[in-house]
Amino acid sequence: MKTRAAVALEAGKPLEVMEVNLEGPKEGEVLVEIKATGICHTDEFTLSGADPEGLFPAILGHEGAGVVLEVGPGVKSLKPGDHVIPLYTAECRECEYCLNPKTNLCQKVRATQGQGLMPDGTTRFSMLDGTPILHYMGCSTFANHTVLPEVSLAKINPDAPFDKVCYIGCGVTTGIGAVIFTAKVEIGSRAVVFGLGGIGLNVIQGLRLAGADQIVGVDLNPSKKEMAERFGMTDFVNPKDVDGDLVAHLVELTKGGADYTFDATGNVGVMRTALECAHKGWGESIIIGVAPAGAEISTRPFQLVTGRSWRGTAFGGARGRTDVPKIVDWYMDGKIDIDPMITHTLSLEDINKGFDLMHAGESIRAVVVY
Amino acid sequence: MKTRAAVALEAGKPLEVMEVNLEGPKEGEVLVEIKATGICHTDEFTLSGADPEGLFPAILGHEGAGVVLEVGPGVKSLKPGDHVIPLYTAECRECEYCLNPKTNLCQKVRATQGQGLMPDGTTRFSMLDGTPILHYMGCSTFANHTVLPEVSLAKINPDAPFDKVCYIGCGVTTGIGAVIFTAKVEIGSRAVVFGLGGIGLNVIQGLRLAGADQIVGVDLNPSKKEMAERFGMTDFVNPKDVDGDLVAHLVELTKGGADYTFDATGNVGVMRTALECAHKGWGESIIIGVAPAGAEISTRPFQLVTGRSWRGTAFGGARGRTDVPKIVDWYMDGKIDIDPMITHTLSLEDINKGFDLMHAGESIRAVVVY
Repeated sequence: MKTRAAVALEAGKPLEVMEVNLEGPKEGEVLVEIKATGICHTDEFTLSGADPEGLFPAILGHEGAGVVLEVGPGVKSLKPGDHVIPLYTAECRECEYCLNPKTNLCQKVRATQGQGLMPDGTTRFSMLDGTPILHYMGCSTFANHTVLPEVSLAKINPDAPFDKVCYIGCGVTTGIGAVIFTAKVEIGSRAVVFGLGGIGLNVIQGLRLAGADQIVGVDLNPSKKEMAERFGMTDFVNPKDVDGDLVAHLVELTKGGADYTFDATGNVGVMRTALECAHKGWGESIIIGVAPAGAEISTRPFQLVTGRSWRGTAFGGARGRTDVPKIVDWYMDGKIDIDPMITHTLSLEDINKGFDLMHAGESIRAVVVY
Repeated sequence: MKTRAAVALEAGKPLEVMEVNLEGPKEGEVLVEIKATGICHTDEFTLSGADPEGLFPAILGHEGAGVVLEVGPGVKSLKPGDHVIPLYTAECRECEYCLNPKTNLCQKVRATQGQGLMPDGTTRFSMLDGTPILHYMGCSTFANHTVLPEVSLAKINPDAPFDKVCYIGCGVTTGIGAVIFTAKVEIGSRAVVFGLGGIGLNVIQGLRLAGADQIVGVDLNPSKKEMAERFGMTDFVNPKDVDGDLVAHLVELTKGGADYTFDATGNVGVMRTALECAHKGWGESIIIGVAPAGAEISTRPFQLVTGRSWRGTAFGGARGRTDVPKIVDWYMDGKIDIDPMITHTLSLEDINKGFDLMHAGESIRAVVVY
């Protein structure tokens, strides 16, 4: 079949919207009509050329929602008409990782996914001249239709609006999941969140959901304060306004250090601050942000020996097929909010404007609706 | 009263064995006759002058065992004749830390202990000319008699031999506890231990006790192999004998990375190796070793984001009054072994020989018996 897609032809260039060929689903695969997709910093990271693992030409996009059109042989858990969210972290429920309750990093389709291919080592997309186009993060939601492995699709509540719950495909789950699945924050905790963008706001609402007593947000941009308060932030700290040491300030504000801290900036200096303002004895610091290639975190080992722990999270520790449908239900039940974070809605033709809005810091999330 | 003690008069000089004054126990304090004490690297670290928090003159030693001679007003949990192990990490059972199940870092006497003083801000030791001598880590077991807060003493099985169980006051508990209390290693785990000295050997026997399937020991000194095997090591790796990348070698040996890794070297480069050979998705790396002042650990945050966690442990995460008596019982019941690690027994007069043996790498543990 043919479909319309925004194609990343090479690093550093705008996407080009064009018609492309799409082969139907093979064994264990599913054809999905994408109804909406968010534009995430990770897409931007790859498109910019900064991602050392970026491959081109490719169809980017990994934060979508849509409807199953057709299933390939052997697909049992999905049927045409099912509403789904694509998962860049699959959940096969049978690999060594899925069977270990400590991780969500299913390895079933990992190797081929990293090469921009389906599990059989080929691509379903091609240019009209036959040139293959690579998949991206196993999703390629910047195409109106895409093919994914069955294990990379979460079946969701069919009443959920695509243009909102697509955000659960990455940002919402990453932020809320970091709190609930990775840190397992307890009621009454004190927490500090660094970076009040799309991920940070979701960390904040995850903390509210978990019953945290104090939710400190840290950002250099004071205009972030209002929205963060709306999602549950109790205290705002602008490092520019702090005289002296930021760690000492945050330790004092949290009465000895935070039980949990979260980096949602990707800045390795901020990651160190996040670790060091965690409480002696038991504070945990969770890295969510993606650092520039080659950047390293560092600290004195004394910080760890005196009881802090340094951890990270990918996709919020969520097991996609199991947890994403629950988070969609939380949204439908009003337990979490998404709408105010979808600041812009665009057509596929205008997708590059979504990247411009991100660069200008004007959007929290821009969503393309097909 | 008067007692004999090995006094550290200044950094970098041998200890001087002399008679000193010792005041009796005040409110909440206990007078203990030390029967035996180990000589630990931490004593050496302070005596050498490398410890930026080292204070002089002081009576070092923190790995002892002895008998209660007298209790001060208000002491309820101990009486004359009780056998005890001094605790450099107290357990008051009422501070914010003791009431938090995630930590063992009781803060009750921490501030004064760090200044070499009893909780009332004074010292019980003095030279015969009246010059005050500081306590060390709240213990000062290099004196034949010493005074400690009640909360800094674990009451133990009176049948336990002092010259063996004194080692439980630091090394044994630190190593075994890192496995059992901090990492909470599960049966069937794979583990890597860096550094096969006194701490590393106890990590190894802790792993055996916890039912680990694979216990890899890493040391540059091949002579460490035999003793480590005796304590449960299943695989020995000498980095000098590894062609290529040590991390890759250890990941392969442990079939994908270790579930738990332990640094017992204090070398920050080794700490990084320990983290990076932990299993993607769930591997935990525990720092036990004390790094040189100012040294920093570093890694790419990707190591954490893909599921490894970096932690530390002090006194093996043990709550001294609760856990040390249990570990003494494990020794008495033959569940753990200590005797082969006590390689040398000395008199107080020969205590400096114990430091010489440590410097020469000839001892695992030298013990002074009074």
